[in-house]
Amino acid sequence: MEFSFASHSSRLLSSHANRTNNVKRQGSFISLAEELPAEEFFPIKRLGEAAHAVFSSDPSVLQYGEPEGFLPLRGWIRKDWELRKGIRTTEEQILLTTGTQQTIDLVTRLLVDSGDTVVVESPTSPGCLQVLQMQGAVILPVFTDTEGIVPEHLEEQFQKHRPKLLFAAPSFSNPTGILWSLPRRKAVLDLCRKYSVLIIEDDSYGELHFGADDPSNPFSESYPALYAMDQADNGNHVLYIGSFSKTIAPALRTGWATGDKRLIQGMSSLKQMADWQSSPINQQILYQLLGSTSFKWNEHLALLNREYEVRLKLMLELLKRPGFKNVKYHPPTGGMYLWIELPPGLSSEALLKAVLHKGVSFLPGSRCSPGKQTEHYIRLNFSRPGREELLLGMNLISEAISEFTARS
Amino acid sequence: MEFSFASHSSRLLSSHANRTNNVKRQGSFISLAEELPAEEFFPIKRLGEAAHAVFSSDPSVLQYGEPEGFLPLRGWIRKDWELRKGIRTTEEQILLTTGTQQTIDLVTRLLVDSGDTVVVESPTSPGCLQVLQMQGAVILPVFTDTEGIVPEHLEEQFQKHRPKLLFAAPSFSNPTGILWSLPRRKAVLDLCRKYSVLIIEDDSYGELHFGADDPSNPFSESYPALYAMDQADNGNHVLYIGSFSKTIAPALRTGWATGDKRLIQGMSSLKQMADWQSSPINQQILYQLLGSTSFKWNEHLALLNREYEVRLKLMLELLKRPGFKNVKYHPPTGGMYLWIELPPGLSSEALLKAVLHKGVSFLPGSRCSPGKQTEHYIRLNFSRPGREELLLGMNLISEAISEFTARS
Repeated sequence: MEFSFASHSSRLLSSHANRTNNVKRQGSFISLAEELPAEEFFPIKRLGEAAHAVFSSDPSVLQYGEPEGFLPLRGWIRKDWELRKGIRTTEEQILLTTGTQQTIDLVTRLLVDSGDTVVVESPTSPGCLQVLQMQGAVILPVFTDTEGIVPEHLEEQFQKHRPKLLFAAPSFSNPTGILWSLPRRKAVLDLCRKYSVLIIEDDSYGELHFGADDPSNPFSESYPALYAMDQADNGNHVLYIGSFSKTIAPALRTGWATGDKRLIQGMSSLKQMADWQSSPINQQILYQLLGSTSFKWNEHLALLNREYEVRLKLMLELLKRPGFKNVKYHPPTGGMYLWIELPPGLSSEALLKAVLHKGVSFLPGSRCSPGKQTEHYIRLNFSRPGREELLLGMNLISEAISEFTARS
Repeated sequence: MEFSFASHSSRLLSSHANRTNNVKRQGSFISLAEELPAEEFFPIKRLGEAAHAVFSSDPSVLQYGEPEGFLPLRGWIRKDWELRKGIRTTEEQILLTTGTQQTIDLVTRLLVDSGDTVVVESPTSPGCLQVLQMQGAVILPVFTDTEGIVPEHLEEQFQKHRPKLLFAAPSFSNPTGILWSLPRRKAVLDLCRKYSVLIIEDDSYGELHFGADDPSNPFSESYPALYAMDQADNGNHVLYIGSFSKTIAPALRTGWATGDKRLIQGMSSLKQMADWQSSPINQQILYQLLGSTSFKWNEHLALLNREYEVRLKLMLELLKRPGFKNVKYHPPTGGMYLWIELPPGLSSEALLKAVLHKGVSFLPGSRCSPGKQTEHYIRLNFSRPGREELLLGMNLISEAISEFTARS
């Protein structure tokens, strides 16, 4: 028989954003395209001990759990926020999910009807765009510069279109790696309050900030989450999205949402409908790890940040290769990505075709906007590739750009 | 700020089917309402060994995996089907999911537009109804008797409404526990072919068949999956849903879909959008368990089926209590549920209120139909409660029914 797909899924499956960017990780192929953390820093030994402790206890650890997620892990997140960032919340305001992608899908299904207008920080992640397309949202991009969303453009979009939601990633966004300045954070929050727009704050990369943290001026005070700023005023204008995928390990598939109780309850009901619950065993292993005295959370994050900074520096050094002469970029201070504007006239999709032949890949910017706004940009991942891969991969991309520019 | 939920999610959140049936598992409360397997038969020791092996290997086990799921586990499922049931399929036709609920959600999002008509075997599981409501489907129930769907009624619904899909659970359905006869299986498959209706076959409970399996006449030949029957004729009219939640353990959150490659590819793309992928670490632990020589899959299933049959027999014995005098039921030969028609005039929701006061619960039939077709039925779970709980729980329900009938 023939199958007739639903209209939204047909559109999604044929859309540009959906083109898979996960070329098989095999052989000598070098991927700078993916959203992968470095495997060598996964705390596998400690996780193995944590798993051993969990599997050595009562069989009830293997039963269905609470749809909202393992309560002690929600409690650990609550305390961690309070200790490290001075944010007060409650377990009831935290829903554990299978990761950021699911959190975005759940909140979108909860709030967005087909035809509803949502504003996204442009560029934005392909995963977020896919969810919004699938739900039939009208997606409006809002301009950003190196300090974050441009408030004047945001207000213009709010006035013209009265959107329901703003999707933003103020700390080391995927794909740009931009860190919003404090004045911009304040300005955006104020505008969302003024126009009653809920902010979906994706903070998946927020723990990956490089450079020594000055104890008298910690990162969380210089660059507070919008959620924290809003909470300080007893607001409910922000739904916060966090994840352990980039800080502990992706295979445990654990992220969370924090926000107003009504939103969390609604998302929790939708989550029951969508997959009943995420893995309770993974949540218990994570809780066991994070609560164990042999695992130092702060030291682990510091290690990641030192190592990722080294990789970023190498990538920046490699941008001195001839092919990159006419590219533009703003060196990020955290996250996992470098966002590069190609020389005039070169499209990211054309360049991708050329570099794939050479055995290397990146994410073309064309997949990071609802329209053609960013098709002359590319996103490079610096967190996963090792030194040799990075050297070779960047050389090959430099070569490909040179070949294009020589021709034109 | 106030939040305005999307229309489908508002409807779902306020619907009857959404009322949570998972009263907290605590204290002396006895739940016969849930969909829980017995914890004492989880192979926790073997799973602990499997986890140890996985966490002792390369850190790459903790990286993101394939969105379709861990290939060796898909290969194991393929081989298991071939060995035990003679069904031929390929890894490319298998998508690993977070369980049956997610599989139903994914296939529905792939195929159903708001306003599309789908037919469901009536009664059906609350989880399936929720997904269909959320997607805005027009849900048509089709009558069943003790042999399965009534083909005459099915054809009538097909002719009148030209639906896109049929949701059915031919082996030990949730909630009725009915096992479709072979002639019914054939008749339903023939009708779906004739009218080009895709069957979504939920076989979550299909391994839980009681009584000794006669090697000369195995269960899978007497009661083949619709998928197997369709495959034998090279058809593509069935999407099959399987799960390890009821046979190994729910906390590993692993189920699967098998079907036409185009469906599996579409569902896989939607899965990437919905949650990127299910837990690769859980899939690897399951694969390690199932492939280990110390774990005997057939013996494990036989153990479950012996033990669950004992529990079912006890529950049937307890139906001799005075309150159950005027109830009707058909003893199932597998699964986890007993489906009971209450004495005339007694509604399942009214009875539930009464038994909750006594400290026991069940699933009211009102949540198992799109309309009021089954509001005078209740579903009792016999797999999880131990002997003492079952005795006390059934006594309390008997008492509550007697109190109602004495009053009327």
